[in-house]
Amino acid sequence: MKIDLPRLLDNLNRYSEIGRVQEIGVERIALSDEDKVARDLLKNQMEAAGLEVLIDELGNMIGLRKGLEEGAPVAFGSHLDTVYKGGRFDGALGVLAGLEAIHKLNDEGITTKKPLALINFTNEEGVRFAPDMMGSHVYSGQATVEEIWQSEAYDNPKDTVKGRLEAIGYLGDMKTGSMALDSFLELHIEQGPTLETDGIDIGAVNMVQGIYWTRYTIKGQANHAGTTPIGYRKDAGYAAAQIMQFIGDYPRKADDRVLTTVGTVSFEPNAINIVPDAASFTLDLRSVNAEALKKAQKAIDAFIENLIKSSGLELEKEEMVRFTPVQFDSGIVKLVRSEAEVLGLTVREMPSGAGHDAQMMAAMCPSAMIFVPSVKGISHNVQELTLDADIENGANVLLNIVLSLASKA
Amino acid sequence: MKIDLPRLLDNLNRYSEIGRVQEIGVERIALSDEDKVARDLLKNQMEAAGLEVLIDELGNMIGLRKGLEEGAPVAFGSHLDTVYKGGRFDGALGVLAGLEAIHKLNDEGITTKKPLALINFTNEEGVRFAPDMMGSHVYSGQATVEEIWQSEAYDNPKDTVKGRLEAIGYLGDMKTGSMALDSFLELHIEQGPTLETDGIDIGAVNMVQGIYWTRYTIKGQANHAGTTPIGYRKDAGYAAAQIMQFIGDYPRKADDRVLTTVGTVSFEPNAINIVPDAASFTLDLRSVNAEALKKAQKAIDAFIENLIKSSGLELEKEEMVRFTPVQFDSGIVKLVRSEAEVLGLTVREMPSGAGHDAQMMAAMCPSAMIFVPSVKGISHNVQELTLDADIENGANVLLNIVLSLASKA
Repeated sequence: MKIDLPRLLDNLNRYSEIGRVQEIGVERIALSDEDKVARDLLKNQMEAAGLEVLIDELGNMIGLRKGLEEGAPVAFGSHLDTVYKGGRFDGALGVLAGLEAIHKLNDEGITTKKPLALINFTNEEGVRFAPDMMGSHVYSGQATVEEIWQSEAYDNPKDTVKGRLEAIGYLGDMKTGSMALDSFLELHIEQGPTLETDGIDIGAVNMVQGIYWTRYTIKGQANHAGTTPIGYRKDAGYAAAQIMQFIGDYPRKADDRVLTTVGTVSFEPNAINIVPDAASFTLDLRSVNAEALKKAQKAIDAFIENLIKSSGLELEKEEMVRFTPVQFDSGIVKLVRSEAEVLGLTVREMPSGAGHDAQMMAAMCPSAMIFVPSVKGISHNVQELTLDADIENGANVLLNIVLSLASKA
Repeated sequence: MKIDLPRLLDNLNRYSEIGRVQEIGVERIALSDEDKVARDLLKNQMEAAGLEVLIDELGNMIGLRKGLEEGAPVAFGSHLDTVYKGGRFDGALGVLAGLEAIHKLNDEGITTKKPLALINFTNEEGVRFAPDMMGSHVYSGQATVEEIWQSEAYDNPKDTVKGRLEAIGYLGDMKTGSMALDSFLELHIEQGPTLETDGIDIGAVNMVQGIYWTRYTIKGQANHAGTTPIGYRKDAGYAAAQIMQFIGDYPRKADDRVLTTVGTVSFEPNAINIVPDAASFTLDLRSVNAEALKKAQKAIDAFIENLIKSSGLELEKEEMVRFTPVQFDSGIVKLVRSEAEVLGLTVREMPSGAGHDAQMMAAMCPSAMIFVPSVKGISHNVQELTLDADIENGANVLLNIVLSLASKA
């Protein structure tokens, strides 16, 4: 069975206008007004497709399609939120290809044995509220609704998750995680260059890298840039620069099994002629190898502690995220391979470098992912692009796996 | 003759309440509402002291006291604006000790031969509008009013110098620089530790360090922190870290005749899981030695250009300030020494590490500065402090030099 590509592309275009940035970019931050517009559209489309729409306490949206039998539904989906200046496919593809699968089953008059559940998870990206993969994190029982509700926006501590859910009308009454799932499947763009570079159509994702997020704040002393001899300074900014360079050097010189990124930085008071008395920055550290991840974090922390000690500065460290690598269900991964091959597509088993809702869901039900190529591997960027043919391939694989999983007794 | 210390301390306390921060700090950003409050108070006090108050097109405030003879006045003063989270003495001491000198002459019924001019220059600090030493820069004929009026606030391009002058009521009609001056003298805190450390009462400032300010912006490519192999990245943040470390290392390892400070930094899009596509930071570079200054700037620029070339990034460079070292008038410097010695104070000739209005004024008339000790050398900080005895010493030296300069035929 094959999906209706023009219908899916039309719908992707429609959502990409919600928070559009430049030619083909999208900025639809979780729990923003743009997120609300996209959610409202999805809710209407789910209802029009005959789904029962459930909203849970964290705003996760579940569109339920009855099966011939009662029981836990075969679930699939992703997220509609994006990063700042993001792309149109990261997240939206998984939700809208899932909706297209429902449409196709409606077109063909097919009712599966097991029920189906199309899910749009809240705040996968985590750019304004921590943690990322928020909705699936709680859905899979790894955090409580109450603690996550209190999470404050990075740019405005008065904005909480609960406050924003209320503001956009998505503080639902379904208890998060209360519906058991048969399985969870997520179609997503690769967000890296390997499939495109090697000419492979489909990635059968068998694991997700571990992710550690840490925020470091160094405290020194503000002083005049022109009158304070170098030996008298407690320069938080210079210390931060040394650490940021060490972090950047690490995968290039010490251990290339990890990826390191310093994505955010700020100085206080941030004035051109004042030695900074505070410097804050974040570390995003990832590896498919749990040992390499721990080793790198330890090496970076040791470097920082030595520097702090020897320079009379002070350190604050916040461990924001500690996700160890996650294995996906080998049965579903095999199914991704076999369904892709049946469709005449080339397929490769591979790890995911990015975090995804599916890695959270793996804690509660058999889960896996389908990757399609990203042009030049560009993602989290307004240039993000996946070709129509790859969208079609990925959506077809998703449809056929859903059929295969849901038809089983 | 000696000033009235309690009266001067009372007045310093009064101004330190305008924009007060924490125990003893002050935040009175140039052209802010707090600046207006301080200006209004000074205007009233100048008028009450019998001065004719002139406001020029850049908001410079001049309080004129007639002499027995016509001609160019002996001028003295400083500035009432501060940095963010600044101190109570940086600038205000020079203005208010000048006002105290006027009060003392009034008390004693003395009219000098030459007229006197007490000046409060606009925006010496330059933390919100470039350039710093703005008022004296234009007064001394080194920039035009028209170009400076257009300067935009760093935090809001809609705020211009002219707009803010209008908003606070200090867009005056006197042509900036139209009044010739006999000489200019500025009393200021040292803002460094040397006088206190060596137990010297008074600094006779014979020159001011050269200052170069440069803003660098590195452009790379935004990409996903978890999926983009290190070799594919164009990481503007990592490049910035390498450069910022090189800049910090330079005076520590390559040439200790210069001071380097990176006081501001920002990344775009500044998200934890996105490789930065832009990183911007400023360099504050100073030296008493013009050759060392040029050499350091050249070395830093060469490092940056090599890094940019080898990493496929792009660079934007803005030369914000290029002040070469300035020599003060040797006659007035000698007068500072001799008047201090007459008062029984220890005195040392020294350079200024910070930029000051007097260095601008040196281009139009004989100028010099008097320094008093800063406790622990702390400045541009809410902890900034100068002891009462040092305030008294500095104000007495100022008063007696003014008398000496203005009594001359």
